[in-house]
Amino acid sequence: MTQPLCTFNFQFTKMKKPLILVTNDDGISAPGLRNLIKVMNSIGDVVVVAPDSPQSGMGHAITINNTLRCSKVTIDDGPQTEYACSGTPADCVKMGVHEILKRKPDLCVSGINHGSNSSINVIYSGTMSAAVEAGIEGIPAIGFSFLDYAWNADFAQVTSFVKRIAESALTIGIPEGVVLNVNLPKLLEKDIKGIRICRQAMAYWVEEFDKRNDPTGKEYYWLTGKFINEDKGEDTDEWALENGYVSVVPVHFDMTAHHSIQKLNTWDF
Amino acid sequence: MTQPLCTFNFQFTKMKKPLILVTNDDGISAPGLRNLIKVMNSIGDVVVVAPDSPQSGMGHAITINNTLRCSKVTIDDGPQTEYACSGTPADCVKMGVHEILKRKPDLCVSGINHGSNSSINVIYSGTMSAAVEAGIEGIPAIGFSFLDYAWNADFAQVTSFVKRIAESALTIGIPEGVVLNVNLPKLLEKDIKGIRICRQAMAYWVEEFDKRNDPTGKEYYWLTGKFINEDKGEDTDEWALENGYVSVVPVHFDMTAHHSIQKLNTWDF
Repeated sequence: MTQPLCTFNFQFTKMKKPLILVTNDDGISAPGLRNLIKVMNSIGDVVVVAPDSPQSGMGHAITINNTLRCSKVTIDDGPQTEYACSGTPADCVKMGVHEILKRKPDLCVSGINHGSNSSINVIYSGTMSAAVEAGIEGIPAIGFSFLDYAWNADFAQVTSFVKRIAESALTIGIPEGVVLNVNLPKLLEKDIKGIRICRQAMAYWVEEFDKRNDPTGKEYYWLTGKFINEDKGEDTDEWALENGYVSVVPVHFDMTAHHSIQKLNTWDF
Repeated sequence: MTQPLCTFNFQFTKMKKPLILVTNDDGISAPGLRNLIKVMNSIGDVVVVAPDSPQSGMGHAITINNTLRCSKVTIDDGPQTEYACSGTPADCVKMGVHEILKRKPDLCVSGINHGSNSSINVIYSGTMSAAVEAGIEGIPAIGFSFLDYAWNADFAQVTSFVKRIAESALTIGIPEGVVLNVNLPKLLEKDIKGIRICRQAMAYWVEEFDKRNDPTGKEYYWLTGKFINEDKGEDTDEWALENGYVSVVPVHFDMTAHHSIQKLNTWDF
């Protein structure tokens, strides 16, 4: 699993360095993003446009009723250029592509998210919304998520997979209209069995609201929930992750349920 | 187009009144919501759980890093029960289903949105995220959007279609795992040609950022953009709307691009 990627590296020395747009939803200071930047610096020229504050659970939100701020920042001594943006992950991609970058990037990567975006989580995920936004713009895009919510998660265990998948996307190309949702299991690198192409498991959350009272006695709620996966297919992302694989789900942004058009056409309006 | 729905009404007198959860993304005071409530009051028992402030463009955002507030309110003298919630449209549905309602609603309707949610807009839409959230919960759900952004839009022209589609959903049933994205053209009722089941047009936005300076001289941006539809299919929602029809797109929340799994399996990791 950790063999050097000679083919890719060889090709990269012959071609112009790819331009890579990097973003996330945990905010510009998140270790997951800092690790992703390091990996991408080893592949291409990196421009970071990331939220200036955490944006988890933002789904595909965009800022249309408010203004946006965007400032050039220096966070570490890496070669990347960085911008912190007041908006959502999808805003960051729009800002990067239409305001900051001089040309269309060759790849957009989002993450590495602190926590899973497998299964139905793809729909709530700011990390994936950034990748999907790039996909809509016609840019090859990948969202990476690590199944460890901890701020000090050991990203070193999974960065070789991140690099391999990003390089494959650059050299082979991602099918048009598709972005990749990559989830990385919380395992030691040596224990990860490989990479599997999967479908999204049909799992869901059963929510509960934790009702509390504020210091003035007024009620408020915290959203909590339990993840339920009754989809036992061995071709799902949940199965892959539970069995020690990195899951790669091709995701598209045509939300039409094509299979049900015929049935609905029998409705007599 | 405006004939009385005798079949539906007859069935409704024999059955227990359906329980209908109503929400939107323009906020609880929006005329689009007030019109939707009126229509739903003529069909069933209505509980409203709507955002206490506008949430347009919120996509499938949920509130996980902050608390939620939810208060019972009275806005007009209708028979419905209403709650104003501090969260996103998706939060409102979760709150309605898991905290407020005693049983699963028979239908969830979201809207009527002030402005289109056709084509790619489905992905940015708070209106549709509420419907999709209900769909994930196993509740038949419909998002309604009117192609008129004005606050004083003439919703009376389209409410008969809203009623007809909601009643069809209750009597015939929406296919499992599917929610309906209904867009209503800005036309006089008599000029609307009918209802068409469609696929999502593969259109997109080309964004521009309107860069300005605040009173202290610091830069800020407004997101603007131009809608581009190069999808000329006559089976799309855009075609239907341009040609005077109400468009109904069945939407699902399996975002897997199933057709590309085989191709990606040829990648040599």
